[in-house]
Amino acid sequence: MKINKYEDISQIEREAKRDYIDRHSAFVHCEDVAKRGEKFTVKVQVGDEYLHPDDFDHYISYIQLWDGEKMLAQTNFTAGAMGSNPSQVEVDFHIVPSRKMKLTATAFCTKHGLWESDAKVIEMAD
Amino acid sequence: MKINKYEDISQIEREAKRDYIDRHSAFVHCEDVAKRGEKFTVKVQVGDEYLHPDDFDHYISYIQLWDGEKMLAQTNFTAGAMGSNPSQVEVDFHIVPSRKMKLTATAFCTKHGLWESDAKVIEMAD
Amino acid sequence: MKINKYEDISQIEREAKRDYIDRHSAFVHCEDVAKRGEKFTVKVQVGDEYLHPDDFDHYISYIQLWDGEKMLAQTNFTAGAMGSNPSQVEVDFHIVPSRKMKLTATAFCTKHGLWESDAKVIEMAD
Amino acid sequence: MKINKYEDISQIEREAKRDYIDRHSAFVHCEDVAKRGEKFTVKVQVGDEYLHPDDFDHYISYIQLWDGEKMLAQTNFTAGAMGSNPSQVEVDFHIVPSRKMKLTATAFCTKHGLWESDAKVIEMAD
Repeated sequence: MKINKYEDISQIEREAKRDYIDRHSAFVHCEDVAKRGEKFTVKVQVGDEYLHPDDFDHYISYIQLWDGEKMLAQTNFTAGAMGSNPSQVEVDFHIVPSRKMKLTATAFCTKHGLWESDAKVIEMAD
Repeated sequence: MKINKYEDISQIEREAKRDYIDRHSAFVHCEDVAKRGEKFTVKVQVGDEYLHPDDFDHYISYIQLWDGEKMLAQTNFTAGAMGSNPSQVEVDFHIVPSRKMKLTATAFCTKHGLWESDAKVIEMAD
Repeated sequence: MKINKYEDISQIEREAKRDYIDRHSAFVHCEDVAKRGEKFTVKVQVGDEYLHPDDFDHYISYIQLWDGEKMLAQTNFTAGAMGSNPSQVEVDFHIVPSRKMKLTATAFCTKHGLWESDAKVIEMAD
Repeated sequence: MKINKYEDISQIEREAKRDYIDRHSAFVHCEDVAKRGEKFTVKVQVGDEYLHPDDFDHYISYIQLWDGEKMLAQTNFTAGAMGSNPSQVEVDFHIVPSRKMKLTATAFCTKHGLWESDAKVIEMAD
């Protein structure tokens, strides 16, 4: 099982490769600090500048949200949920943290495998 | 397999039963009209006035979003993702509709089974 | 959310309908009696006499195994896992029962929705 | 996201560590050669010599089967499906291969994270 990691596409020259990496990469979008014991919204979006197909034989079939070694939640999608057109799959989780977190997300493309986001550290405020 | 359906709790007298039904019921929150081919946000929340436990032996382990007979997406949760305190599990899906939808959501409680929301019809605007 | 139930196809005259019902129905295959506290194998198979496609836009994407109101396990499949040819999707679960069970299985077809098997009661032997 | 890999426990001296590694590791059990286009049974079992708890706050919540970079199937378990006693979680997949495969399995423990099996190469016979 190979895990593809995000690469900074501004450092990549070839357009096809920039597109390929960006559209498969999961991105964790959330505040940098969370309030302990309160709901905290984490958006996971696949793709930042580029779009991924939603074809029956080529789509993002699941997203996982991890805090360190613990998987918090997984969303599975049925092909066509994005209207069968290219887009950026996204899902918002609303978790309740009790301590500092190190969030990562993964996204699985049915043609191009598993992709892992950069980690994002979330500090706790009381 | 039994599916529990939401009942209007304003019609229920006994407080324990109001609590039981409300905290297990999935609710679909979204606009009434969607733009064809554009992202449309659907929040599914479990519980409206009451809170559900997030105990290891008693929590909401998954939510599904359906359009008619088609399941669009399913989110699975690991116990503890809500901080191990009572709350209302929620997840926001961002789907792209291409025609009128009839959305329902289901939620599965590891102690009290499967619950289905009322259906919500979404009209399309071009 | 509509749940299609198995119908005895020997009572159905029209061949297309027999095929349609049979190939979508989940069947629970296991012994009638289980030993309390020991592993017990339950095969869930979709289709008995007929085959279901494994096309990207038309396949069995998940199977669930239920004991009464409790979901025990769910298997999700990626299209193509059955070689992209018609077949009968199956999965063997190995659960450990502690009391009498009432097993049902569901199967979800990405084109024709959710199907529920007949229930099978399993007695316990000590 | 860290992936723990199987280590040959015969090379490990400390009993607690042997137990820890063995009981979390996924093992792929199947024939070495498959017939192209025919059903091929793959058992994934977690643990070889040691047992893993099935406690509400500590259990194996999912198993995935991969062929190279493609995830073929994922089974999610509800805590208690193994009778709430230590055992070796297992599931049998019945896939239909069309070419040489490189199978790996992963298992996720709700306390000790993700574990990946050794890879097993399956040759095709016509």
